[in-house]
Amino acid sequence: MKKVAILMGSDSDLPVVRKAYDVLKDFGVETTVRVMSAHRSPDLVAEFIGAAEANGYGVIIAAAGMAAHLAGACAANTVLPVIAIPVKSKALEGLDALLSSVMMPPGVPVATVAIDGAVNAGVLAAQILAVGDDNLRQKMKEYKAGQKAKNIESDKKVTAEISG
Amino acid sequence: MKKVAILMGSDSDLPVVRKAYDVLKDFGVETTVRVMSAHRSPDLVAEFIGAAEANGYGVIIAAAGMAAHLAGACAANTVLPVIAIPVKSKALEGLDALLSSVMMPPGVPVATVAIDGAVNAGVLAAQILAVGDDNLRQKMKEYKAGQKAKNIESDKKVTAEISG
Amino acid sequence: MKKVAILMGSDSDLPVVRKAYDVLKDFGVETTVRVMSAHRSPDLVAEFIGAAEANGYGVIIAAAGMAAHLAGACAANTVLPVIAIPVKSKALEGLDALLSSVMMPPGVPVATVAIDGAVNAGVLAAQILAVGDDNLRQKMKEYKAGQKAKNIESDKKVTAEISG
Amino acid sequence: MKKVAILMGSDSDLPVVRKAYDVLKDFGVETTVRVMSAHRSPDLVAEFIGAAEANGYGVIIAAAGMAAHLAGACAANTVLPVIAIPVKSKALEGLDALLSSVMMPPGVPVATVAIDGAVNAGVLAAQILAVGDDNLRQKMKEYKAGQKAKNIESDKKVTAEISG
Amino acid sequence: MKKVAILMGSDSDLPVVRKAYDVLKDFGVETTVRVMSAHRSPDLVAEFIGAAEANGYGVIIAAAGMAAHLAGACAANTVLPVIAIPVKSKALEGLDALLSSVMMPPGVPVATVAIDGAVNAGVLAAQILAVGDDNLRQKMKEYKAGQKAKNIESDKKVTAEISG
Amino acid sequence: MKKVAILMGSDSDLPVVRKAYDVLKDFGVETTVRVMSAHRSPDLVAEFIGAAEANGYGVIIAAAGMAAHLAGACAANTVLPVIAIPVKSKALEGLDALLSSVMMPPGVPVATVAIDGAVNAGVLAAQILAVGDDNLRQKMKEYKAGQKAKNIESDKKVTAEISG
Amino acid sequence: MKKVAILMGSDSDLPVVRKAYDVLKDFGVETTVRVMSAHRSPDLVAEFIGAAEANGYGVIIAAAGMAAHLAGACAANTVLPVIAIPVKSKALEGLDALLSSVMMPPGVPVATVAIDGAVNAGVLAAQILAVGDDNLRQKMKEYKAGQKAKNIESDKKVTAEISG
Amino acid sequence: MKKVAILMGSDSDLPVVRKAYDVLKDFGVETTVRVMSAHRSPDLVAEFIGAAEANGYGVIIAAAGMAAHLAGACAANTVLPVIAIPVKSKALEGLDALLSSVMMPPGVPVATVAIDGAVNAGVLAAQILAVGDDNLRQKMKEYKAGQKAKNIESDKKVTAEISG
Repeated sequence: MKKVAILMGSDSDLPVVRKAYDVLKDFGVETTVRVMSAHRSPDLVAEFIGAAEANGYGVIIAAAGMAAHLAGACAANTVLPVIAIPVKSKALEGLDALLSSVMMPPGVPVATVAIDGAVNAGVLAAQILAVGDDNLRQKMKEYKAGQKAKNIESDKKVTAEISG
Repeated sequence: MKKVAILMGSDSDLPVVRKAYDVLKDFGVETTVRVMSAHRSPDLVAEFIGAAEANGYGVIIAAAGMAAHLAGACAANTVLPVIAIPVKSKALEGLDALLSSVMMPPGVPVATVAIDGAVNAGVLAAQILAVGDDNLRQKMKEYKAGQKAKNIESDKKVTAEISG
Repeated sequence: MKKVAILMGSDSDLPVVRKAYDVLKDFGVETTVRVMSAHRSPDLVAEFIGAAEANGYGVIIAAAGMAAHLAGACAANTVLPVIAIPVKSKALEGLDALLSSVMMPPGVPVATVAIDGAVNAGVLAAQILAVGDDNLRQKMKEYKAGQKAKNIESDKKVTAEISG
Repeated sequence: MKKVAILMGSDSDLPVVRKAYDVLKDFGVETTVRVMSAHRSPDLVAEFIGAAEANGYGVIIAAAGMAAHLAGACAANTVLPVIAIPVKSKALEGLDALLSSVMMPPGVPVATVAIDGAVNAGVLAAQILAVGDDNLRQKMKEYKAGQKAKNIESDKKVTAEISG
Repeated sequence: MKKVAILMGSDSDLPVVRKAYDVLKDFGVETTVRVMSAHRSPDLVAEFIGAAEANGYGVIIAAAGMAAHLAGACAANTVLPVIAIPVKSKALEGLDALLSSVMMPPGVPVATVAIDGAVNAGVLAAQILAVGDDNLRQKMKEYKAGQKAKNIESDKKVTAEISG
Repeated sequence: MKKVAILMGSDSDLPVVRKAYDVLKDFGVETTVRVMSAHRSPDLVAEFIGAAEANGYGVIIAAAGMAAHLAGACAANTVLPVIAIPVKSKALEGLDALLSSVMMPPGVPVATVAIDGAVNAGVLAAQILAVGDDNLRQKMKEYKAGQKAKNIESDKKVTAEISG
Repeated sequence: MKKVAILMGSDSDLPVVRKAYDVLKDFGVETTVRVMSAHRSPDLVAEFIGAAEANGYGVIIAAAGMAAHLAGACAANTVLPVIAIPVKSKALEGLDALLSSVMMPPGVPVATVAIDGAVNAGVLAAQILAVGDDNLRQKMKEYKAGQKAKNIESDKKVTAEISG
Repeated sequence: MKKVAILMGSDSDLPVVRKAYDVLKDFGVETTVRVMSAHRSPDLVAEFIGAAEANGYGVIIAAAGMAAHLAGACAANTVLPVIAIPVKSKALEGLDALLSSVMMPPGVPVATVAIDGAVNAGVLAAQILAVGDDNLRQKMKEYKAGQKAKNIESDKKVTAEISG
């Protein structure tokens, strides 16, 4: 199975990003976590991403806030699917990172998830790898069933609380 | 190779959505285009999407405007990756469709591209299929090289126009 | 008198949603509170809502945050009036949930109240049931008179505080 | 069956509002259309709405643009359910009318539909009346089935167009 | 000299509104502070504002949050100038109250100040009364000079702090 | 009676601004219209506004688009009430001009009307002058009554059109 | 004198960007205009910008729309000042390009001008070069005086038109 | 080497602004910090900025919140490059200050950095001075290298933390 690389622009993004790593670990997907910035170390991004396919990566996840260019910088340097996690910063409620990530020009897509949506970035990466991997797709179905089960559990808890 | 299904909520979305189909056709990806609405024919969406994996689909693309729930309704019914094209409508400049598509809750991702970004939805779907398909990945590299070549061509044209 | 069903996407919405329940209880309206998610348990939503009319419900209230599809998923499966409570989440100040709830396409309305406006969802549900129920409409008038009385009370308090 | 009153702040809103009237006429609901402004003729609004219940109205629809106060002014003067149609004006893409309509304070709800969503205002009014009217609810189900049928028709047309 | 009336929709607005009162008191303007709601006690607003001119008021200040209709409801019932203070509430950062206050239709102006801008509402009311009152205009000039003096004082403090 | 000065940042604003002039002319208020820019001719603004009170002006109206500083620049140089007309430009739907006009810091108010709300700027200026002028206040009442009459006329027209 | 390089992401930006070129030509600043994309030809951007200082450039201007990363990609590869022109595209009124340009993280500034503000990008580039060039600064003063003169001319025209 | 002047509208902006001063101090750029308000002391701004060039300043930085006119007021009075720091205030997440700063009309540019982006204002000012100063440009390259080094350090730390 191919690997996933998670890049973040700054180590201050780690508390958000770690959830993507945890999800992928739970799915048994080998995952590399790196700090690289589209603006502070652009050559390292280009180098790492340019070699990602050859190095066994199948999907890239990039997390960044403010004028979030990291996912776009990855997409510019690979044909692998790139997922963006727009990170909420101190102003504008994450709208800046969302628009900077999602509004990519024709020909260079970035698959954007919700603001601070690291769990979903992990799940989406696994879904992508699962397209060609029956075993992983099976795990994904169990994950989905688990989500439903938790939802039903919450339903029981709330029903009890309201009735009680 | 697995197929792609493109769903749109209304046939008025076709002029936007057709570009995704054209891109996928150019990549040689077998693609089905359907009109189904999360709000007008929810059972058909659930049925079609629920059977999509078994029917040989690998990726779902959903295009919708306003309170764009179609991609989310797909994601709720499959573990295949789902791509959303938020469609700009008469008010709010597409912001409604963008937020309705991208801000999915944890566990149920939707890979969102730009407002009216149908070309990128097609490219992203092909990239996802290409993760496990060397031939398609090669075509994707040629596409990427073609994009660069066009960019260089534009550069020459503009340089000539400015100098002229 | 018909019943009201209140659905929420996640039990984390309960602190907001409970106010709708309390209002309806005060109006003597029988109310069911359930946790069901348009994305995690879509079939349960379709099943419950599809049977709601037959089970004696007259109005549905749905509370959800982010890409809030729950109310739309309800409206897709019933001809009963559906009220949405857009719930404010961690980013975007509730604008995502508001637009995802209110911008429904022609033919499938969702009656949207303010962000976190659970009290008003309860009052609106009661107003709808009161259209055909003189007794409930009388209670509604007393509620409205009570609101005015509290407003006048506040006026006295502030006047005293300023003068004091 | 109770009647519906549709109020608009200015006759320039008629092209938008007329769709609500047409929908209600199709449902066989007796509907009155009036021009009254919360700002230019507030006493007429208070008088008309104050007497609406006694005059046989069951639901009020109010359409207004900009700082759209008309629906709120109605809700202040009746216990009948009030539906707002926020009308898009020359600036701000209808966001002004949407927020002015939907963000009502606790105790005085306004059931808000989409910007320029007059069709849905009509459907919602009919749904509300249908809560206590089996015949109208039956018509509503046929309307819903018709919507689905049109959606399926569109699906065939698009499938044919793409294949062609 | 004519009086100023300050209305607020709810006593929870008092901490914001009090600054307008304090400013007007400092200018020696007789000021009445009242709680009245466009939605909970609309007839009291119409009555109080309808009689305001006769009762010696020259300017009205109205403070409200969310779908802030109070200033518009005042402007509908008087030819006196009406000033709106849009109050920030729990969601949307005050944008709802701002747009609900400022986007008034032609013919019925509301003079809107900044979100939570109670000081400026007070100053503006005093400026309006000062148009025909040399003595108050003189005080206003002193106030303006005082503002400049404080600014110069801050400059010295900061210069000292930076140099120190 | 004191005069009104209308300033605009650029002559491209004239089509919008002229409506303020026309309203004031109808009220018999002597009005001066000038083009002056806070950014291109700041000294002329400061000079004109600094002398405005002495030259018999009672109210200033300033119209500007984009980063609309003109009203603020006027308010900085006078104690007369300053009214802002935020003008919609090519981008952002007038939100830039609105926020640049209305969000003034404490102590320096600008009375802001709607985006492109020139009629209301004229009416507000007349209302301010009318505080101390019984004759003008009487005209204002007639204007208000005329607005109501037109609204009633529209009501008849629409009623006839719908019935017809 | 050092040169200015103007980069745009796509030749569709030329009509907007050309105004920056024209301004710089009028100031006698040698200017190169190139089409290069942060996403389609990132290595060419890095190469051109990386060598810009050595090749005699003093300022970079980058114009791009949507998720406008071009200016940031330039700033990542040079210590020369980089100016961004956010270009308005088909959706979101230019807000996407503005936030993608201006919200740069600490350490890597981009000097952002208004949406479609190409004239100002040209003027700002000339102002920057003029810091160390008395002759150019003199021209800049004449330009500024010319702006003021045109403003005064507009004032005369409008005054005549209003009086006439 | 020319000096930099940093102006702020109020001493409450100092905690934000100080970072610009610290950066410039680190670069060895002589920097003056002043409190002056476009609205409270406009003549002092005009006087200080009008004389800035003659007094040896090469770049102006202006920080202000809300309807942030200070940078525009500087740009109106000098041909030196003016940098704006839009400061986030209590409402609207800094969007007001951003738009008030960046959306300048043609001919009078303001180089705007991110909301609360004081570090970048300092770096940009130094970059501008460095255009004509080889020594400062060298320091800027070291600063850039330092940023990259820190980024690489963070990468190592995160890699260790994840592996650990």
